[in-house]
Amino acid sequence: MSQDSTGGGSRGYRDTAQVDMPMAPPRPTGPITERDTRAAGTPAPLESRPVPVPEPRMQTEQPVPILQLSEGLATVRTVERHLDEILAAVPQPDPIELAVLDAQGLLCAEEVISQRALPAFDQAALDGYAARADDVLGASLEAPVELAVVGESVPGVSAPSSIGPGLALKVAAGAMLPAGADVVVPAVWTDQGSVRVAVHAGPPAGSYVRRTGDDVAPGDPAVQVGTPIGPAQISLLAAVGRERVLVRPRPRIAVLCAGTELVDVGTAPAPGQVVDVNSYALAAAARDAGAEAYRSGILPTDRRRLTEVLESQLLRSDLVLIAGTFASGGFDMVQEALAELGEMRFRQVTMHPGPAQGFGRLGRDDIPVICIPGEPVAALVAFEVFVRPAIRLMLGKRQLFRRTVQAIAGQPLMSPLGYRQYLHGTVMRHPDGGYVVEPVGDGTEALLARMARANCLIVIDEDVTEVAAGGLVTVMPLLLGG
Amino acid sequence: MSQDSTGGGSRGYRDTAQVDMPMAPPRPTGPITERDTRAAGTPAPLESRPVPVPEPRMQTEQPVPILQLSEGLATVRTVERHLDEILAAVPQPDPIELAVLDAQGLLCAEEVISQRALPAFDQAALDGYAARADDVLGASLEAPVELAVVGESVPGVSAPSSIGPGLALKVAAGAMLPAGADVVVPAVWTDQGSVRVAVHAGPPAGSYVRRTGDDVAPGDPAVQVGTPIGPAQISLLAAVGRERVLVRPRPRIAVLCAGTELVDVGTAPAPGQVVDVNSYALAAAARDAGAEAYRSGILPTDRRRLTEVLESQLLRSDLVLIAGTFASGGFDMVQEALAELGEMRFRQVTMHPGPAQGFGRLGRDDIPVICIPGEPVAALVAFEVFVRPAIRLMLGKRQLFRRTVQAIAGQPLMSPLGYRQYLHGTVMRHPDGGYVVEPVGDGTEALLARMARANCLIVIDEDVTEVAAGGLVTVMPLLLGG
Repeated sequence: MSQDSTGGGSRGYRDTAQVDMPMAPPRPTGPITERDTRAAGTPAPLESRPVPVPEPRMQTEQPVPILQLSEGLATVRTVERHLDEILAAVPQPDPIELAVLDAQGLLCAEEVISQRALPAFDQAALDGYAARADDVLGASLEAPVELAVVGESVPGVSAPSSIGPGLALKVAAGAMLPAGADVVVPAVWTDQGSVRVAVHAGPPAGSYVRRTGDDVAPGDPAVQVGTPIGPAQISLLAAVGRERVLVRPRPRIAVLCAGTELVDVGTAPAPGQVVDVNSYALAAAARDAGAEAYRSGILPTDRRRLTEVLESQLLRSDLVLIAGTFASGGFDMVQEALAELGEMRFRQVTMHPGPAQGFGRLGRDDIPVICIPGEPVAALVAFEVFVRPAIRLMLGKRQLFRRTVQAIAGQPLMSPLGYRQYLHGTVMRHPDGGYVVEPVGDGTEALLARMARANCLIVIDEDVTEVAAGGLVTVMPLLLGG
Repeated sequence: MSQDSTGGGSRGYRDTAQVDMPMAPPRPTGPITERDTRAAGTPAPLESRPVPVPEPRMQTEQPVPILQLSEGLATVRTVERHLDEILAAVPQPDPIELAVLDAQGLLCAEEVISQRALPAFDQAALDGYAARADDVLGASLEAPVELAVVGESVPGVSAPSSIGPGLALKVAAGAMLPAGADVVVPAVWTDQGSVRVAVHAGPPAGSYVRRTGDDVAPGDPAVQVGTPIGPAQISLLAAVGRERVLVRPRPRIAVLCAGTELVDVGTAPAPGQVVDVNSYALAAAARDAGAEAYRSGILPTDRRRLTEVLESQLLRSDLVLIAGTFASGGFDMVQEALAELGEMRFRQVTMHPGPAQGFGRLGRDDIPVICIPGEPVAALVAFEVFVRPAIRLMLGKRQLFRRTVQAIAGQPLMSPLGYRQYLHGTVMRHPDGGYVVEPVGDGTEALLARMARANCLIVIDEDVTEVAAGGLVTVMPLLLGG
């Protein structure tokens, strides 16, 4: 089925972890335990190596110390609220007309009404003999009916012909039916004669005939608004004579990254420097989600040029995605430059990894700008959670979120209380049915090489701090498109 | 999960209907009944309207009269045998080097060994204070440890620094760790002082530090042969400094169609003429399957030009796909022209719709040429059954076939004995679990407008002639890529 053909439209979009899961088994309360309240105020260790949890000595209610935010900028909100703000603000780009082959994968934005009948003429549905049903009525192998063959009709020959009583026209599948004929006797039910033909069975009138307009009548809707255009729709569009069709376009997304430590992939990084991987990975992810993504690379560190680049990207994009506006050096300058272009809000979102998230609508055209963390694993998680649904909404897709399944945790999983945890993992079918999932690496910190081995995200809800081995967790398989 | 990450490799490719179905419930024998042997020799009606089955009067063992083949050319074979011949013959195009973003969706064809360590230097995993673990051991809110802050380190600053006993360096996530430090105390576990800092908890040595090479050590394999390249792999490739990567290329496929009745979509068809929809629909289907498809359109009817077009397509393609070489007018000439270029075999394959199939390896380079029926619904079915698996094999994919599910038939389904029947249908999740499937239209003949409403193919095995309402059938959901 199409990714868009099922699921409840916008029904599920307040809880990304529970979308499209009506069939999932209920979550057992047994194996999922919460830590006691004493531990609730303790920062959970986020280290990938087996570091013992420090003895709790603090009474504060502070969340996990993942990131410090600039004073005054930070407000705390849930994943759903941040996602809602983004989805409510992304624009719906105007439909555009494309050649039918270029429309593949997009949603139809017009009601395509056929001006033609399909088939355009009465025709044989298979190879045989066009005849009159009355003539062949009661024919059998023992008592065949003989007809005179008046000629042969093949597809593409427009010369109309007609038959009278006692006559037959040899026809190939797709050939025009002669006037007077109301049945095609399959060739294998005859002696296949070419001057006279002996008919061994008399199918009822209408058999093996495709009538004009049986498939589509003039004035019938052929492809409707909101239909995803795939090979079958392209076939139908061509059949009704359409070379071009109005569709929801791919949103144009500029992918930028910020950070004074960044160098382009072609440059050998000096000590302390890091290769920009985000503009590549996020452009790839945006394309995979259906966008027309432009990798615009590293933002300049010169203040005037920074603003110029941001302004030009706002002019040519439907959405601007910036990774690393928070955690990296020079982020104050980027935030300043963004603030000059409109209201940009940075927030602490209760998710891990990467709680530092920003969103605003900037520039003359109020273009949505999504700021996500610069750490590459956190950046791809934020893309999945916030950007991919926004792209799908702009494409007009009804199903904004990836499907999720419930899987048995192959080992214990930890999660900070109050934060929705996204862990990269490997999900496999279990020989006895259902799925089993293992986190990649050893748990809470996914690194690039480990992330590259993952095929899913494990989602652990805010109110769960620990999932025992054997417990059920929500898993979002990361299907590659195509 | 990736479409390629599960399933048993080539294990299943002898039975397209049962691939990847270890989890499916056993097929109940109750609701699926075969017709009695008397009916076995009777041509089943293939009409879409409710035509009564003619009384059986013939003792022949002839198959369903779908199509007549030229004398001497036809041999009968199963779907599996024809598919095996095609899969055994398709070439594996040589790997090519592409820019990492262009490699998206393709399989890596080299062992990418990292020349670098990731991370390239010891760094802070979060914002806080780099310190010596011994200094902060035993610190608590009641008994904080005070350290002198010697400065601040942000990402991208390469100046190495060092700290001694009793000292701390304020660090941002990603900043280089100073020599002498072996722990980062999260900022929220301190009073966040800038001259002196009071530490309220002493994490063990190594906490919140990312060590050089933790993710990837020089000489480690980063991306391995056969890995599908998605955003995470692109991230890792960029991180190890790769701008280009060797991949299995998209096979170049020329899509042609034959038939004297065909006119291009821009032309209004005269009586008896039909718009070429196959070159559009099949090019779209080939792209969806991962190929680089060229829509080469309608084959010329001039004998010399026909051969020229075929020869030039063989030179520029990895595979040539021709729809309509059988059932349409002028097919003798196309078959003749193909026969001049190599051994081309046309066969009656025991499937419906579209048993007329052909395959050969033609031209100087033995390019595989697949001939499929010209009827648009039969053409897209043949594409699914024979061409899509061939494209995926050329791409190096391990999972050649679409996944299938078992679904409850919402209404009775008929199928000709001895033929594998493919019906377009609509599959839906059932509220009580599992799937329900309905054929589009009223059963055996799918028309274009109906096919465009389908989201699956229903597959009915050769030995089954009737599936009762409520019986289980195999369903192949037709997911759109992307």
